[in-house]
Amino acid sequence: MPPITLALLAALCLAAAPLSYAAKARAPARPASAPAPPTTAEVLQASSAGDWRALDASHTLLMELASGPVLIELAPRFAPRHVANILTLTRERYFDGLAVLRVQDNYVAQWGDPDAEAAEKARPLGKAERKLPAEFDVPLRGLPLTPLADADGWAPVTGWVDGFPVAADPRRQRAWLAHCYGMVGAGRDNPADSSNGTELYAVIGHSPRGLDRNITVVGRVLSGIDKLSALPRGGNNMGFYDQPEQRHAIRSVRVLDELPPEQRPALEVLRTDTATWRALLEARRNRREPWFVHRSGHIGLCNATVPTRPASKPTS
Amino acid sequence: MPPITLALLAALCLAAAPLSYAAKARAPARPASAPAPPTTAEVLQASSAGDWRALDASHTLLMELASGPVLIELAPRFAPRHVANILTLTRERYFDGLAVLRVQDNYVAQWGDPDAEAAEKARPLGKAERKLPAEFDVPLRGLPLTPLADADGWAPVTGWVDGFPVAADPRRQRAWLAHCYGMVGAGRDNPADSSNGTELYAVIGHSPRGLDRNITVVGRVLSGIDKLSALPRGGNNMGFYDQPEQRHAIRSVRVLDELPPEQRPALEVLRTDTATWRALLEARRNRREPWFVHRSGHIGLCNATVPTRPASKPTS
Repeated sequence: MPPITLALLAALCLAAAPLSYAAKARAPARPASAPAPPTTAEVLQASSAGDWRALDASHTLLMELASGPVLIELAPRFAPRHVANILTLTRERYFDGLAVLRVQDNYVAQWGDPDAEAAEKARPLGKAERKLPAEFDVPLRGLPLTPLADADGWAPVTGWVDGFPVAADPRRQRAWLAHCYGMVGAGRDNPADSSNGTELYAVIGHSPRGLDRNITVVGRVLSGIDKLSALPRGGNNMGFYDQPEQRHAIRSVRVLDELPPEQRPALEVLRTDTATWRALLEARRNRREPWFVHRSGHIGLCNATVPTRPASKPTS
Repeated sequence: MPPITLALLAALCLAAAPLSYAAKARAPARPASAPAPPTTAEVLQASSAGDWRALDASHTLLMELASGPVLIELAPRFAPRHVANILTLTRERYFDGLAVLRVQDNYVAQWGDPDAEAAEKARPLGKAERKLPAEFDVPLRGLPLTPLADADGWAPVTGWVDGFPVAADPRRQRAWLAHCYGMVGAGRDNPADSSNGTELYAVIGHSPRGLDRNITVVGRVLSGIDKLSALPRGGNNMGFYDQPEQRHAIRSVRVLDELPPEQRPALEVLRTDTATWRALLEARRNRREPWFVHRSGHIGLCNATVPTRPASKPTS
């Protein structure tokens, strides 16, 4: 049993199209003369430069942890007030020297001010807002949603907006960011409007979609999620670290536009409003790589990670 | 913003019942005089001793990693040949001194013999089988399935058998173990029958259900998954470690019945064929804890983790 084994699998396994079981049973066989549908790798190889976009330097954060860099794309369309506050906090260096306080397995890694509750020791919020409205959902109307036809279970409609996984309820005409792996949210207490962006978390386990519409989601990790997901789990209830020295230091957080262009991570993100993205979803639903003996004919919203690649030029 | 914030959330958040959106819209309101439905904690507090079962010492493995103990429950009902081979390999000390070779973020941690492909250095398999048939699915008929009514997307029917998450296709009359977080499978190469249980993996990210029916699933991690999920990610393609010294040592693997009773982990597992389990699912679909402002009315197969608790007496 060579160690390549599962390896081989994974090479293929970045992913898995929206046919129901019934539809699959009805789907006609491809004529022998038709060209084979592409694999996920072939879809990406065939992509054009226009299928990719640069990072938005004014809405992307570079968080330098002791474990390495984490790149976070903010979602102003979904949480404008929280995003504006996080940008203010970042520009005022609120997060520098704070720490990852909590890592709960199969759930979240959370960072903020360990002394936030200690009146004298708490870090001042400067010009940032102390109190914000909850931003749990937004109007569905006008949202440029690339829909996913596959059944979701958690919501009647799902898809992507600007690369973010989104769920929606057409009856109520509301849409919201879905708690997929790597999504970033703003911790809160019992009152719905008790988050202000000073305490943030990233999802590091099976996507806890039960949190959707219960908390303000502010963005997603574009790269470096492993710098959070591989941290030691905390021994206390809910993954809080027992001892202050177990906390994991945040060296700095910067908005990319604060950095000289040559210091900005040079990364491009696949656009989700493209034929390439739709082809990638189909290649993930019905895997064509030789390892696969069964095609699931389905892809989950949170299984369909949006690809990134090194950029040909620096982020401007 | 107190650090309890997300914390509070998580206390509640072990979970999220099978009503569709349409059904929810139709569901009548609870009369004001009816007692409030229980929370997840209240369901577990009200459980009886008979709702819990002991570990099966002859089908549970204790893997001692340098990072700590990992307890794995095998699934002989679903993969009898692989499970028998893994038990033989374990009893012959095949795994002792081997290593975790690969940790790929949001995917799998994989362990085995780093020299498996080197003819002279490969560890001998002793009395274990070199070649086994693929065990990707089993007959649905006769399977004691506790069904989950909630829509899944990946399969027309899902539920639990012996505490294992299961998916099924009534049309084909087949059932299989689902690739949820913490599930353990047997790595293979391209031929479907190229796994023999010498190389194993555990799911450490958003559940890769596209693997279902493509590989033999042999069990699940009952406790200690964090000893695998928090390991450093490998730098090579697909998460293989670059350098041999980065590999994470397996000190020993034992079948529980090889250990004196006092050395066996004393743990009980909630039975999934009970009214308590069904009540827990409902409490997770519609969270009653005060933190929640939105009830999703849905629970995912892979979000509904089966609880364990310290046992009142040692595993016999």
